[in-house]
Amino acid sequence: MNKVAILMGSKNDLPDLKGAFELLDSFKIPYCVRVISAHRTPAEAANFATSAAEKGLKVIICAAGMAAHLAGVIAAHTILPVIGVPMACEPFNGLDSLLSTVQMPPGIPVATVSAGKAGAKNSALFAAAILALSDKDVAERLEQFRRDQSEQVRQADNEVSKQFEK
Amino acid sequence: MNKVAILMGSKNDLPDLKGAFELLDSFKIPYCVRVISAHRTPAEAANFATSAAEKGLKVIICAAGMAAHLAGVIAAHTILPVIGVPMACEPFNGLDSLLSTVQMPPGIPVATVSAGKAGAKNSALFAAAILALSDKDVAERLEQFRRDQSEQVRQADNEVSKQFEK
Amino acid sequence: MNKVAILMGSKNDLPDLKGAFELLDSFKIPYCVRVISAHRTPAEAANFATSAAEKGLKVIICAAGMAAHLAGVIAAHTILPVIGVPMACEPFNGLDSLLSTVQMPPGIPVATVSAGKAGAKNSALFAAAILALSDKDVAERLEQFRRDQSEQVRQADNEVSKQFEK
Amino acid sequence: MNKVAILMGSKNDLPDLKGAFELLDSFKIPYCVRVISAHRTPAEAANFATSAAEKGLKVIICAAGMAAHLAGVIAAHTILPVIGVPMACEPFNGLDSLLSTVQMPPGIPVATVSAGKAGAKNSALFAAAILALSDKDVAERLEQFRRDQSEQVRQADNEVSKQFEK
Amino acid sequence: MNKVAILMGSKNDLPDLKGAFELLDSFKIPYCVRVISAHRTPAEAANFATSAAEKGLKVIICAAGMAAHLAGVIAAHTILPVIGVPMACEPFNGLDSLLSTVQMPPGIPVATVSAGKAGAKNSALFAAAILALSDKDVAERLEQFRRDQSEQVRQADNEVSKQFEK
Amino acid sequence: MNKVAILMGSKNDLPDLKGAFELLDSFKIPYCVRVISAHRTPAEAANFATSAAEKGLKVIICAAGMAAHLAGVIAAHTILPVIGVPMACEPFNGLDSLLSTVQMPPGIPVATVSAGKAGAKNSALFAAAILALSDKDVAERLEQFRRDQSEQVRQADNEVSKQFEK
Amino acid sequence: MNKVAILMGSKNDLPDLKGAFELLDSFKIPYCVRVISAHRTPAEAANFATSAAEKGLKVIICAAGMAAHLAGVIAAHTILPVIGVPMACEPFNGLDSLLSTVQMPPGIPVATVSAGKAGAKNSALFAAAILALSDKDVAERLEQFRRDQSEQVRQADNEVSKQFEK
Amino acid sequence: MNKVAILMGSKNDLPDLKGAFELLDSFKIPYCVRVISAHRTPAEAANFATSAAEKGLKVIICAAGMAAHLAGVIAAHTILPVIGVPMACEPFNGLDSLLSTVQMPPGIPVATVSAGKAGAKNSALFAAAILALSDKDVAERLEQFRRDQSEQVRQADNEVSKQFEK
Repeated sequence: MNKVAILMGSKNDLPDLKGAFELLDSFKIPYCVRVISAHRTPAEAANFATSAAEKGLKVIICAAGMAAHLAGVIAAHTILPVIGVPMACEPFNGLDSLLSTVQMPPGIPVATVSAGKAGAKNSALFAAAILALSDKDVAERLEQFRRDQSEQVRQADNEVSKQFEK
Repeated sequence: MNKVAILMGSKNDLPDLKGAFELLDSFKIPYCVRVISAHRTPAEAANFATSAAEKGLKVIICAAGMAAHLAGVIAAHTILPVIGVPMACEPFNGLDSLLSTVQMPPGIPVATVSAGKAGAKNSALFAAAILALSDKDVAERLEQFRRDQSEQVRQADNEVSKQFEK
Repeated sequence: MNKVAILMGSKNDLPDLKGAFELLDSFKIPYCVRVISAHRTPAEAANFATSAAEKGLKVIICAAGMAAHLAGVIAAHTILPVIGVPMACEPFNGLDSLLSTVQMPPGIPVATVSAGKAGAKNSALFAAAILALSDKDVAERLEQFRRDQSEQVRQADNEVSKQFEK
Repeated sequence: MNKVAILMGSKNDLPDLKGAFELLDSFKIPYCVRVISAHRTPAEAANFATSAAEKGLKVIICAAGMAAHLAGVIAAHTILPVIGVPMACEPFNGLDSLLSTVQMPPGIPVATVSAGKAGAKNSALFAAAILALSDKDVAERLEQFRRDQSEQVRQADNEVSKQFEK
Repeated sequence: MNKVAILMGSKNDLPDLKGAFELLDSFKIPYCVRVISAHRTPAEAANFATSAAEKGLKVIICAAGMAAHLAGVIAAHTILPVIGVPMACEPFNGLDSLLSTVQMPPGIPVATVSAGKAGAKNSALFAAAILALSDKDVAERLEQFRRDQSEQVRQADNEVSKQFEK
Repeated sequence: MNKVAILMGSKNDLPDLKGAFELLDSFKIPYCVRVISAHRTPAEAANFATSAAEKGLKVIICAAGMAAHLAGVIAAHTILPVIGVPMACEPFNGLDSLLSTVQMPPGIPVATVSAGKAGAKNSALFAAAILALSDKDVAERLEQFRRDQSEQVRQADNEVSKQFEK
Repeated sequence: MNKVAILMGSKNDLPDLKGAFELLDSFKIPYCVRVISAHRTPAEAANFATSAAEKGLKVIICAAGMAAHLAGVIAAHTILPVIGVPMACEPFNGLDSLLSTVQMPPGIPVATVSAGKAGAKNSALFAAAILALSDKDVAERLEQFRRDQSEQVRQADNEVSKQFEK
Repeated sequence: MNKVAILMGSKNDLPDLKGAFELLDSFKIPYCVRVISAHRTPAEAANFATSAAEKGLKVIICAAGMAAHLAGVIAAHTILPVIGVPMACEPFNGLDSLLSTVQMPPGIPVATVSAGKAGAKNSALFAAAILALSDKDVAERLEQFRRDQSEQVRQADNEVSKQFEK
């Protein structure tokens, strides 16, 4: 049973979301991926959100660009935690999608992460953080990811600092 | 039968929309006013938009602040012309609502006017411009409004230019 | 008789407007295309706008970049609905043209759509939405466009969701 | 045992967070409130975050203004979900705190909500959404909150639409 | 015979332009003041600009807010130097008028000064600088203004530096 | 004797200024070109500006990027008209140079034109407009330039409008 | 002998700099305060900077608003560390002064601190940090300031956390 | 013994920092280079900063992108002067890192230089300026650098001005 759903407003967003898929895979968190548009398939958006909890989903990640309404529209129909990933499109490079995603009026929250690929990764990590609250395996894997990540920085530090030693 | 609907995301937007009401009244264009929230009453938003054309509505004006999704959500459910008025709220003063309203992805347009009170007036004028295409009385009143407006600038010009004559 | 005029401030804007031409063609809406500059051919701009209604035009689309004055100048001389498309130029990438187009002072509205190519498409769709009010054929084609567009999203959803099924 | 911690970078942020306290109270979610500065009490920040999970905390809300590092610093020391509330200070009115909070590099996510008071409320609602995943009572109260909220919009709609009926 | 014309898009801009009037008075530069709107009295704008050189005007100052088209429209109809003063209006506080004024496409320049009251003063000083090229009296008064201005800073420096001496 | 000086803060700005050189050449306005840095050769900047009027210069064009201080520093030492061209550099693409150039405090004006290449051209046109006030030949050439420019737009209009005729 | 000079572009900046004076006083760092304008008293600026090192000054703090050139102009004439404080003025609220101060081209650095009053304080703290490198008393006082500051946050934390204990 | 430490948040920043290394080398200032992440290796960051003064370091340069917390986190643990270099990353091109670095709350200053490569160079120059206060050799080399730099501008001026002589 899928725990996380990743929704994107357009198929074009798929490559930028790769980092999210890889992280969820590595955490062994089952997820589904959907193309749902707040504007072009609004009924699907409402239906998906309304029935998400029943299907066992715990977290919904929504990636969209421009006037990114997807996360807000989904959040309007469910009390599940909704994470918004502002995708960066020309010409405003994500300032439009960031403000459209994060500036939700009081009453319906969307948890927004960084714009673009960085945000895709962070959305998966945040979803894992939520699931880790009730799933020790995920918690362990997330902690391991953190340790590995720190270790990689330490190795880079080692290499770089040596390179500049005189 | 109402020709124009003015929707606002929150009752707090009412005072800023006064200019729109007055203009529609002066053009004798029948209109209704609704408080519908894309996020807090999404079903009402979808229902309203879906049935708007049947009710005889010709133009829908949507005023909303912050991550202003109202116009986009309404436009997703109707082919009627939807005009978006970005309301200016603290702390981003309408940059968020402007981008959230105007930057609609290709496929579902929202016609956006100036932010705040100026936009409220212009939304009514634009609605009148659309209706004037098939209603000579509205066209005449809109032309008269334009002439009066020009005349007011000319009078101001007269006063000011005299004040500075030496 | 042309129903829509598409004006651009510079011949360079032509490629970005292709989406608008294709959509109007697909809706069988007759249109003309003009290069008129608010600054370099201001008399042509005034003349065009002043006589647009007489020529049977119903909607004017104006695409311009930088300090985009074209839509505002045209709107100053006609009560026909004027749609502004902010073109994105270096170095400010459309922030200048967006604000120059949308922030019309109260009294003369310009209906602004998304910046750049997305806006070109949406301007045609909005023009169609206006014409659809009094032309059932256009209304039907616009509705069909919407259904096709939704269907495309559903197909993309199908492909993508299957690709991630395990 | 507290489930949520609300951290603020400065005591001055207290009034703007009132909406968060009231919502958590209404959901009967036990929470603690702390003044911890990423820059002036960094050891406290690290200690708090490191031991947060052991203390039974499930979600940490961090409100800070200007170069708002608090949420990021807390997130660096825990895998608990961290929600960032960008507080709006003069002269950049929250653009600084929004970008400082949301634009976390890949690897350490902060879930960011709207700037200022709206965000304070939404942070509490998002914390409740997370807790609701494993606490039916919270889920029920959150759903009731949503229903009440929708009802309030409907009542406002009723009042306003009647006021404009002719 | 007036050498400078100060045009404003709206009578409301009058108070912010006071600094310009006082400076031109102090330089004994004859000037006229007009309320002309690029959008509400476009014919007056075109006529004024077209005949400005014949009337003996040497410099035209245009102050306007929002999508400030006034300076560009005037510049389109004359080769006289046109100075633009972006007026700061809510909610975008002059970012809209600055970009609408300064970002003229290549071919028709507008010389833009600071936004608001500071710009009003600087527009008068820049007009004086142009006139000073062919009018020794104005040149002398402008140089005297500069010397006085420097002297005022020196006096402030004297006061402040003494206040802090120990 | 040179009438116009074109100063640039760095030799790298040379290619972007080509349009200015060509226009001044076409107007037969004699000009000199200098590389003077407000920060790296401040004495040269002060000396140049102080002696510019004596050398017969009438207008100074200053092109600089980033925290563009060149125009302001030059203007501080002369009453000659100073035109600022904000050059667009990575990463802020001219927003920094635009604000650094245009936002001069009251007392010392800099007349700012569009950012980048468009501004380079417009700076030459504005310099010509100033010189045209006392030089009929320049005035005539500038008017001819305008007519040619309009004619080019008309030709483009002709081509494009025919291309879309059906 | 003064170690630090605080320069402001206008006497109006005095109140916002109060925090800097108090901090330097508390650190017993002797300082002078000057009103020097990059644009209105450029010779004074150059002279001051050129002779600053000889007078025994170690650090120069420059506070200016709008197109804030003061810090850059001073830095151009001295190798002493120059700290820039962007003052926030209407209408761009410090975005102009921040970019004008921080975006110095490579070769002449200005160390920029926060905009406005916060920056005034931080400029004094940064000056103290520089002086502390060779003055143990200042180092000790700065460390004490830090401890006191942390203690104040801890006390606020105590008060606030108790207030919310149940 | 190293006098300066250059920290970067990610190994990817290395190429952009080359200018800093070269300048410090040319000034014969010994320095170390480290990869330390405020978020991924927070303990290393705290440890490094806490022990930096003891190790003889005098200045710490911190380069980071996005929500750049590195400089602030380091500054929180030391009274040594900390210089922040905002690195420019997609999609916000350094606006996020600039504001995250410079807008430090009062109490803990970070001296921020230009974004990107220009800032890398300026950070080295500013570090040299600080060290020059107590190291005559560095002072001399820095002054020589300034003279060479001015000379290069003068040579460019020579070349360019000759190229345009007629």
